[in-house]
Amino acid sequence: MILKRWLVGDPLKTAQARYERLSKTIALAIFSSNAISSVAYATEEILLVLVLAGTAAVAWSIPVSLAILFLVLVLTISYRQIIYEYPEGGGAYIVARSNLGDRPALVAAAALMIDYVLTVAVSVAAGIAALTSAIPSLFIHREALGLVAILFIIVVNLRGVRESGKFFAVPTYFAIGGLGLLVIVGTIRSLSSSGEPPPVIDHIETEAFTMFLVLRAFAAGCAAVTGMEVISNGVKAFRQPEPKNAATTMVWMSIILASLFTGISWMAYHYGVVPKPDETVVSQLARLTFGTGLVYYAVQIGTMALLVLAANSAFAGFPHLASILARDGFMPHQMATFGDRLVFSNGIIILGFFACLLLILFQGETHALIPLYAIGVFVSFTLSQVGMVKRWLVKKGPHWQAKLIINGAGALTTGIATIIIASTKFLQGAWIVFLLITILLLMFQGIRAHYKAVREQIALDRRGARPPLPGRNIVIIPISGLNRAVVRALDFARSRPGEIRAVFVDVDPEESAKVKIQWAQWGGGVNLIALPSPYRSVLSSLLDYVEELLEKDQTTWVTVVIPEILPAKWWQGILHNQRALMLKAALLFKDRVIITDVPFHLTR
Amino acid sequence: MILKRWLVGDPLKTAQARYERLSKTIALAIFSSNAISSVAYATEEILLVLVLAGTAAVAWSIPVSLAILFLVLVLTISYRQIIYEYPEGGGAYIVARSNLGDRPALVAAAALMIDYVLTVAVSVAAGIAALTSAIPSLFIHREALGLVAILFIIVVNLRGVRESGKFFAVPTYFAIGGLGLLVIVGTIRSLSSSGEPPPVIDHIETEAFTMFLVLRAFAAGCAAVTGMEVISNGVKAFRQPEPKNAATTMVWMSIILASLFTGISWMAYHYGVVPKPDETVVSQLARLTFGTGLVYYAVQIGTMALLVLAANSAFAGFPHLASILARDGFMPHQMATFGDRLVFSNGIIILGFFACLLLILFQGETHALIPLYAIGVFVSFTLSQVGMVKRWLVKKGPHWQAKLIINGAGALTTGIATIIIASTKFLQGAWIVFLLITILLLMFQGIRAHYKAVREQIALDRRGARPPLPGRNIVIIPISGLNRAVVRALDFARSRPGEIRAVFVDVDPEESAKVKIQWAQWGGGVNLIALPSPYRSVLSSLLDYVEELLEKDQTTWVTVVIPEILPAKWWQGILHNQRALMLKAALLFKDRVIITDVPFHLTR
Repeated sequence: MILKRWLVGDPLKTAQARYERLSKTIALAIFSSNAISSVAYATEEILLVLVLAGTAAVAWSIPVSLAILFLVLVLTISYRQIIYEYPEGGGAYIVARSNLGDRPALVAAAALMIDYVLTVAVSVAAGIAALTSAIPSLFIHREALGLVAILFIIVVNLRGVRESGKFFAVPTYFAIGGLGLLVIVGTIRSLSSSGEPPPVIDHIETEAFTMFLVLRAFAAGCAAVTGMEVISNGVKAFRQPEPKNAATTMVWMSIILASLFTGISWMAYHYGVVPKPDETVVSQLARLTFGTGLVYYAVQIGTMALLVLAANSAFAGFPHLASILARDGFMPHQMATFGDRLVFSNGIIILGFFACLLLILFQGETHALIPLYAIGVFVSFTLSQVGMVKRWLVKKGPHWQAKLIINGAGALTTGIATIIIASTKFLQGAWIVFLLITILLLMFQGIRAHYKAVREQIALDRRGARPPLPGRNIVIIPISGLNRAVVRALDFARSRPGEIRAVFVDVDPEESAKVKIQWAQWGGGVNLIALPSPYRSVLSSLLDYVEELLEKDQTTWVTVVIPEILPAKWWQGILHNQRALMLKAALLFKDRVIITDVPFHLTR
Repeated sequence: MILKRWLVGDPLKTAQARYERLSKTIALAIFSSNAISSVAYATEEILLVLVLAGTAAVAWSIPVSLAILFLVLVLTISYRQIIYEYPEGGGAYIVARSNLGDRPALVAAAALMIDYVLTVAVSVAAGIAALTSAIPSLFIHREALGLVAILFIIVVNLRGVRESGKFFAVPTYFAIGGLGLLVIVGTIRSLSSSGEPPPVIDHIETEAFTMFLVLRAFAAGCAAVTGMEVISNGVKAFRQPEPKNAATTMVWMSIILASLFTGISWMAYHYGVVPKPDETVVSQLARLTFGTGLVYYAVQIGTMALLVLAANSAFAGFPHLASILARDGFMPHQMATFGDRLVFSNGIIILGFFACLLLILFQGETHALIPLYAIGVFVSFTLSQVGMVKRWLVKKGPHWQAKLIINGAGALTTGIATIIIASTKFLQGAWIVFLLITILLLMFQGIRAHYKAVREQIALDRRGARPPLPGRNIVIIPISGLNRAVVRALDFARSRPGEIRAVFVDVDPEESAKVKIQWAQWGGGVNLIALPSPYRSVLSSLLDYVEELLEKDQTTWVTVVIPEILPAKWWQGILHNQRALMLKAALLFKDRVIITDVPFHLTR
């Protein structure tokens, strides 16, 4: 408990919740790091596909980057409309549910959940790649470093929203500054010193250049726009007026993302930089621009910090989505409860667990994770936009035609992108994502069906009829010998109505004779029944006896009064037989059995 | 449960226990494998010390082996007396306790327990070394192979005594046959073809030849006699007349052990074989004698089987010793209970766990474990013999002087050996064993003191005074909403005496208003109390309330009636809030709180 307090801080009162709202500056750091940080690997992933057809194909990185810039523009405009329309938070799940119904909403939710996990894994892997580019000796430890980073983020998030915000703002802005400087200095130099790019290492062409390859490059680059939806999920976390602040933050985020991505793609093309296995493209560009000095290290450390902290954005989004699903009965109720620190502890822990698992499975390798990435986000983008189209058609309202056209364009663009991503990545891993979406969908529906069945079973009778009480109540006290605990439990049982029987299991005839003699003095006239035990299992003999009583008459209930001796110190528990605990656990699953625990606390 | 049945077999009735007695043939296989199997590494360990002073020093292996043979003789004669004197089983603990008192007995028990664990680890490591000598490609997997072997033995032992016996007899006799053939053929050849030993690889002298080195070699070789005490621990497992059968088996064991050990030591000396890192001395001898053919592989497989199965002997002895200690109150009571299959399951599992731990810590390396080995056994040998000396002095009886001389010689011999082993191995690891003996001693005494304190606290009053009952009993029913489960618990509570209050934690004002309205219809006039919850923790608000009631008046007891909704399938449990479980766990540690569980079983 002390450890927990030290790690996650003191609990906060509900009344404090409204102060936990974020300023635009802090919110930009928390919600935008996901989208912006992808500039660290998006260009590289585009190039990795294109170089398969030789260095000549690399020139196609410019049109591919422009296509992605267009996506950023379309998403920004259409998501602004969602933010204003859903000030309570307009994640894909909410938009799809209120306009398209349950099933599309659950598909969107499943897709997003999978992508949150991938965001954490990809961002952390890329962050560690930034670090190992600068310090190559750490390369072999990248998996372990990634796991440490995720655990670190989990702890920070369990401490609560605003403290995390402060914690993340400084490094995020530091990284944006560093990458901005890289892009500005690099671009100015590239425009002045025109004709002398450094020599290009010739790659062996392993694939022919086709349009399909360009589409694959585009699909890989789409990782750049993942995370753009995060702000629309978290509108409620902003200060008032929430939608306006959120929309402004979204525009700023898009401008930063677009500028950095364009700059890095341009520089990589201009300097002829291609991916290397052990150094990232951004690291190569930073070395070319600043030399391997203080500024270079600052850029690398900043990039790493931004990426590792980008994972944090998923830790805000995932538990939030899970809690909305839980509130609607599609996830276990526990997911809806606030933890101690006004955050959704269960969601944080689950997300962290799966992200670690993924990192281990893919050995901390960014490129290995990319084929799974972005599909989920684009599925949810498309469902969101389609949902908005439906909304305008139904709801109409002022300027509805203009709004319809904007979201219609968004739906068309993201729909096409989704098809491109799904078809080019399908065999390389995207099928896993579709399989997982299906499994999650079935899980959500199964959970809801279970809760519905429970509600029906425990519902109160409309005409006011009360559930039947036991026709006959047999009280049994299992004992293994006589002591103060047993006598107290016996006296307690005798003080209430019911037919009382003490039972003991006859394992050792000598012991049994002793118990019978003592019972004559202490039993207070209560019947003592000896149960046979051919298999020496005290527990199963007792359970058999209870079962027998219950079967004889369906209106009979059995109350088992357990004299439980509790040690003064918890660790002394291992010195006691745990029989009471096992008995209670076994009885709990029998119908018509009431368990009464009469404790006897030892003091030393 | 089905898996458990399949792995460990059906439970046995107590009445079947007397049939679980062992014939001499089976008993020899079970109880002697420990002692006999040590011939596989004892000679090698002696040589490993001597070669440190160069190959010339190796000739000293013959006098060292003769000294160990003398030990075997002394131990056989003195242990026969113990077997006859203690037909119920005369382990060092029992002999020391009945003659020397608690503390020496507990030292002997601690020493033996540590050595049981080491026996398993050393035997399995040596067994795997026999295997990897024959199949060098398995050398890198020796640690994993060792762990698999231990797990295999655990499962076999959990199946019960006699079935294990059958299981072990065939490979044990096969191995004794193989090693016997090796010794006979090898010795005959060595006597006929006198003058041509194969070339000796010259070792670099790393230490000067001193008498201390010879003593170290003797200490290492003492591993050969470990396990000789096993029969005296398990006299009760023999068929009638138990002492006679046990004594005869002991003599046979000693003869086999002495012959094999002498033969192997002689052959190693004659052929000039010295230890290699990746091939055992026995493997080298078998190759020289039979060539690398079918007979060679049979000897290696037999040796491996004997060693891996030797570990089994500890799995008979350790749980037996633990159960005797538990019966006397020095170990947790659970250790004294029979498992399903008339064996001491808890002891088997604990022994297996620590042996695996040791194997992992020492990376499956026999030589690394040897410095820890044999000390424990010799400490207990000495305490046993000293105990017998004391016994004859006190008890006298027929021929007591002769018996006194025999056990006196035993005490002297084993005492000197113990001093040699302890002093030569002290810095190489023996100190760990002495430290562990001290820790175990304190643990045994602490456990006994705890049980004594418990007995005093729960003892019935001599004058017949009964423990006081609650002066006032307040019944509280914690609820979070109204449903059939709650109404049933309420009606159950109303049907018995006590002041009833329903309590709910006020988290959401809207929800609270609804509960209050429903209570008016269903509450049956019982008071409904709303508890404030500044920290949103339902659990801590409830506990605070209970605490408050208890503190107001020291004679007040609180009965908490918990309406518990139980899912139809266990895995549905994760979809429910576990609040009832957490509440019960928290309440259990409060004094004067009675817990009553009123279950509501769902059917789907």
